[in-house]
Amino acid sequence: MRRFAALPLLLLGLLVTAGAGRAAPAPEAPASALPESLRTAAASLRDEAVRGTRAFEIVRSLTVEVGPRPAGSPADRRAVAWGVRTMRELGFANVRAEAVQVPHWEPGAAAGEITAPWPQPMVLLPLGGSAGTPEGGIEAGVVEFSSLDELEKADPAKVRGQIVFLNKRMERARDGSGYGATVPGRGRGAAVAGKLGAVALLLRSVGTDHNRTPHTGAMRYEEGGPRIPAAALSNPDADLLEAQLASGQPVRFHLSLGSRRLPDEESANVIGEIPGREKPEEIVLLGCHLDSWFPGTGAVDDGAGCAIMMEAARRIGALPQKPRRTIRVVLYANEELGLSGARAYAQVHAAELPQHVLAGESDFGSGRVWRVSSRVAPEALPLVDQIAALLAPLGVAERGGNDAEGGADLIPMAPARVPVISLGQDGIEYFDWHHTANDTLDKIDPKDMDQNVAAWAAVAFAAAEMPGDFGRAPEGEGRE
Amino acid sequence: MRRFAALPLLLLGLLVTAGAGRAAPAPEAPASALPESLRTAAASLRDEAVRGTRAFEIVRSLTVEVGPRPAGSPADRRAVAWGVRTMRELGFANVRAEAVQVPHWEPGAAAGEITAPWPQPMVLLPLGGSAGTPEGGIEAGVVEFSSLDELEKADPAKVRGQIVFLNKRMERARDGSGYGATVPGRGRGAAVAGKLGAVALLLRSVGTDHNRTPHTGAMRYEEGGPRIPAAALSNPDADLLEAQLASGQPVRFHLSLGSRRLPDEESANVIGEIPGREKPEEIVLLGCHLDSWFPGTGAVDDGAGCAIMMEAARRIGALPQKPRRTIRVVLYANEELGLSGARAYAQVHAAELPQHVLAGESDFGSGRVWRVSSRVAPEALPLVDQIAALLAPLGVAERGGNDAEGGADLIPMAPARVPVISLGQDGIEYFDWHHTANDTLDKIDPKDMDQNVAAWAAVAFAAAEMPGDFGRAPEGEGRE
Repeated sequence: MRRFAALPLLLLGLLVTAGAGRAAPAPEAPASALPESLRTAAASLRDEAVRGTRAFEIVRSLTVEVGPRPAGSPADRRAVAWGVRTMRELGFANVRAEAVQVPHWEPGAAAGEITAPWPQPMVLLPLGGSAGTPEGGIEAGVVEFSSLDELEKADPAKVRGQIVFLNKRMERARDGSGYGATVPGRGRGAAVAGKLGAVALLLRSVGTDHNRTPHTGAMRYEEGGPRIPAAALSNPDADLLEAQLASGQPVRFHLSLGSRRLPDEESANVIGEIPGREKPEEIVLLGCHLDSWFPGTGAVDDGAGCAIMMEAARRIGALPQKPRRTIRVVLYANEELGLSGARAYAQVHAAELPQHVLAGESDFGSGRVWRVSSRVAPEALPLVDQIAALLAPLGVAERGGNDAEGGADLIPMAPARVPVISLGQDGIEYFDWHHTANDTLDKIDPKDMDQNVAAWAAVAFAAAEMPGDFGRAPEGEGRE
Repeated sequence: MRRFAALPLLLLGLLVTAGAGRAAPAPEAPASALPESLRTAAASLRDEAVRGTRAFEIVRSLTVEVGPRPAGSPADRRAVAWGVRTMRELGFANVRAEAVQVPHWEPGAAAGEITAPWPQPMVLLPLGGSAGTPEGGIEAGVVEFSSLDELEKADPAKVRGQIVFLNKRMERARDGSGYGATVPGRGRGAAVAGKLGAVALLLRSVGTDHNRTPHTGAMRYEEGGPRIPAAALSNPDADLLEAQLASGQPVRFHLSLGSRRLPDEESANVIGEIPGREKPEEIVLLGCHLDSWFPGTGAVDDGAGCAIMMEAARRIGALPQKPRRTIRVVLYANEELGLSGARAYAQVHAAELPQHVLAGESDFGSGRVWRVSSRVAPEALPLVDQIAALLAPLGVAERGGNDAEGGADLIPMAPARVPVISLGQDGIEYFDWHHTANDTLDKIDPKDMDQNVAAWAAVAFAAAEMPGDFGRAPEGEGRE
């Protein structure tokens, strides 16, 4: 836009100064300090992004032209093609799709109803990876548990032959912390109930909304254990089942799931780069995941994250001078059903991981960034503080700890001690839409995305341009 | 509750005073004034209701024990049984189910998808009364219109053989006024599109939300006109279809509806009374409708209204002395698909209608009352003002006009010039849930219901107890 026409020249000047050391090495700032010129350039990048970016347009394109894209589905392949095409159009270099084997699970048709004492249809979805019911479904009595802990201690005589209803509510919180308290019931509920002799699991959705849009998500059976069908009821449906149970009368339920596991399919991690001008072998990785669950168009999870990271890197690549190190954007395959893409990346790029100077992932929707956390060498923490200071004008007021996980797709790189910066986003609404049919484009405010782009662009630019690095991260996977 | 134990005696005293004229007629206040004793008693009734009523418990019972209850369905019959049982339990007299013939339309299974240019599944529901598609569904190109007006002027050559997408957004407003601007597209869109040669109608939901929960509702074909299938897309689905159309590429859609009309069934208006102590033949009618659409449990539309009216009347009936006139609660059959119950009532009770001194209906969810409107003899307007003044402490600050319709079920009584009082409710969220799967109990705040009960109890008590009456309403159906 016209009023910013002067900016590229300004940035060019700053970068030429910052990069002047290349031809004739000038004394660099110590690793614990970001040069003034770098900070000024990062601030300009940040401020221009706040004025408007292409991020919303990118996620719009993904949701309109691809939509739901579960791992292994035909739409997953279309998503990979979209990723390659879009990265090229945005000017990335070395754009490629690195093949990844992914599981292919089909949700199939799902139906359920309370059959007694007061017949009513129920809205439910299969949990990801669930077995189906036999043709015609199953009908059984319902026994209710208020938590996975309570279920684990249950008398098998109470559960045998019954449908277990795991009825734990998720609490709303800005940092999404209610998720950790409820998601184990989704992941392990069916395995635990199955071992006790239950014939199916009904889960109160792991979500904070009051919509008839159940929240699916991954679940796992134990090796060799029973594989009972598992479905999530929407919160209002769980309320209704709870109310019928509260009458004290026996409650019966009919459940029919057409879910099934199919042979593995090929998908891909889609990768594009802004090659570094001085140290192209050193990599700042910006990640997100390209797959989504089946009910929504995957706008929030994780179209938003991919758009934010692609646009943050694109803006750096569009500067008059490339940064010293390479910025690599990775759209991971199959995060949702087992991190296939992340594991494949860590394996295929194992030799490179020591040159990964930083990794970050955006996978929490489009809510505004409010906190900076990290997992870096302790001596590099002053650098993180200075980067955090760069984000303060964006309303990022809080510093988290140095034990950040940074995103599920970064976990497989943790053993290589790849440093992580994590930008905590406002997730007050995130679990209203997460893994539901309601995960659609209208849930995203373009200005929120711009703030995220501004934050990641500043972080990535600083990491790619700064004289020193973050050392190696402490051992362990981190948390959050 | 303990702290109100003194109230019944107090009320008794007041009512004995008010009713003292029966034994030896004392000079009554002129018809234009409510006696002080009556106003005091109505205020006590109002204030005690605000402290807590059974209304939420009543709608909870209906939604938990019956749930969705479309006219003619098996659940409709269960709803009638619930109404009779509940009215008796609440202490009503003359409880009965007056048989009504109702249409029986089955929604059946519904599915749709964009097949080109970018295939995506769509969330949709049939409009109420729609024909089904042939087995296997239909597939055609999509042509978009921004309003029914625009469609009515369309060149048939553009529409012939196509699926019409009527894409008009409903505006949010406290008084629900956005409904009137969009609902004609739902009612007549398929008839108009069919005459132009369209093969189906897709309607952007008449609703203010952004959920994947389409809004169904009644539609009508013209006598002898084409009967094309008609479905509502949720707002996010309509956004997506709009975005694909905006690409300029031809968009194709596959639609499959299993909807069908079945033979008429018997349902009933459920009626219960608080018989008047002096003029039992004079009736204050409190109405609502017992049927609901199929996707939700009909908590908001119109379980809330029935609970409000039943509880308002029950509280009056529980006073130590009955009011002078009869209060009659009518739970109308089949409001949604053609006012069958309301028409039957007006017919069967035609001889009684001149003795209907007032009618009111609650059919706008549980939002708080904020306005009092009427349709009464002009000389009775001072009485309405005084009744409105009784509601001021409830936050009812506005006076509407004297042209109120009062509720769809009151329309068939308009030719008999039955006076109407209408309590305008806050409908800012109403059209988020209206006619969707999201119409469930969790959308209701019990305290809001109590405020409605307080308002209707005061109105009904005043109308049943006051010396004069409202005369006869002006000709015409009223509006609002």
